[in-house]
Amino acid sequence: MANKSQPVRASVSWKDNLTVALVESRNPLNIGAAARAMRNFGFTRLALVAPYDAAFREARSAVGAADVLQNAQLAADLDAVLADCTLVAGTATARGRVKRQPGSTLGGAASLLRAHLKRERAALLFGSEKFGLSNEHLSRCQWTLTIPTDPDCPSLNLGQAVAVCCYELARAPASAPRAPARPRLGRATAAQSQRMVEKLLALLDAAGYINPLTRRSQRLKIRRLVERLEISTDDARVLEGMLRQIAWKLDRQSGR
Amino acid sequence: MANKSQPVRASVSWKDNLTVALVESRNPLNIGAAARAMRNFGFTRLALVAPYDAAFREARSAVGAADVLQNAQLAADLDAVLADCTLVAGTATARGRVKRQPGSTLGGAASLLRAHLKRERAALLFGSEKFGLSNEHLSRCQWTLTIPTDPDCPSLNLGQAVAVCCYELARAPASAPRAPARPRLGRATAAQSQRMVEKLLALLDAAGYINPLTRRSQRLKIRRLVERLEISTDDARVLEGMLRQIAWKLDRQSGR
Repeated sequence: MANKSQPVRASVSWKDNLTVALVESRNPLNIGAAARAMRNFGFTRLALVAPYDAAFREARSAVGAADVLQNAQLAADLDAVLADCTLVAGTATARGRVKRQPGSTLGGAASLLRAHLKRERAALLFGSEKFGLSNEHLSRCQWTLTIPTDPDCPSLNLGQAVAVCCYELARAPASAPRAPARPRLGRATAAQSQRMVEKLLALLDAAGYINPLTRRSQRLKIRRLVERLEISTDDARVLEGMLRQIAWKLDRQSGR
Repeated sequence: MANKSQPVRASVSWKDNLTVALVESRNPLNIGAAARAMRNFGFTRLALVAPYDAAFREARSAVGAADVLQNAQLAADLDAVLADCTLVAGTATARGRVKRQPGSTLGGAASLLRAHLKRERAALLFGSEKFGLSNEHLSRCQWTLTIPTDPDCPSLNLGQAVAVCCYELARAPASAPRAPARPRLGRATAAQSQRMVEKLLALLDAAGYINPLTRRSQRLKIRRLVERLEISTDDARVLEGMLRQIAWKLDRQSGR
């Protein structure tokens, strides 16, 4: 099933369809180490979302991966980074964050992610060295990939986490498990999902559904709900049209 | 096959049968990072063979793995480290060192090594950051494990190489990985879906979204769309509440 807005780029490696996004990273050395690990396994698209220290482009830890750092996308928030992705996966360790999205260990999910990348874009998010991904960040993810670490020492170094994930993605598919999940192809892009969530939230605000006191957590819940639905790009267009029409009607009535 | 000099220690994890040996490492930070990666995946026996800088025991990069560094064996050459091992494997990247020992990619060899570790001791050797393992070192190995890196950037950081190998060794056996399939249980009942569709249709009617001339086919399309979403019973309740609230607001406004 081809996605009209994301034509298959046959001349480009599937690895170029992956964006590795480091969110709120604190240490330029770790960013360099992540870039090197990506390059070691053939991945090149790096995005830095709100890094604490923007002086990462010359990190000496990026041996052989200067080009990855030079071309890295620097963004204030996730929106620009995820805009053209039809699958967003967050990484976690066994540290025990409450998972609210479908989760899986890295090994099982990697083959599905690889299959997706052969057709469409995806992003793999890594949280900060100190805190990992926040619930806000995880609410943007359809999947959470858990790297199975030891409960006595669960927290992986950021560069090593990127290395392990890139290794697992790049490994020969010989040992890849069969894909039992629903195909992820033709899914709404992150930008589409985001637009739908914003329209729905505006509508619910106008209808008095959202309690101002719990607004933040309600927004998160609604975003997670929309991500869980795994809406196709076509259905997303239809739903957006419905929301637009209802909002227009509400707006018009209240203005009478 | 029991080894008389190393009886099977049933009460000890198979992971304790692995010695990770770093040969002629140059940077204490890398040694710390390797220790941490070992600990992350449950391995504890580290040996340092002729490190350039012996001041590694307090390496701050060994977050959570101070015990691994403290208990590390420091040796002048490989002999003492390998004495009680019945299998020695050297690591290499795709850098193209001439292989004189039976070689294998990491993925394939790891399961064999794991099987060995369940009975007897083995060592996994990592060469220096600059030169990798020498032919002399490789001559001590029965196996060479190749980490499949990209030819354009083959040289892995030492800590990352240890992380990837330990991850691969510790991973669940091939049959175990599970895909992040969406749970099939907990789906909305047909009655719930039906109610949701009716509420949505009423709302869209009120908003002027539905064209009276194509009403029947639009209803069908909307119902199919809702079914495609495979909404859970909990999410269906939430969505129904949203629809009810928006309908109430529309109704209230139009009645003013």
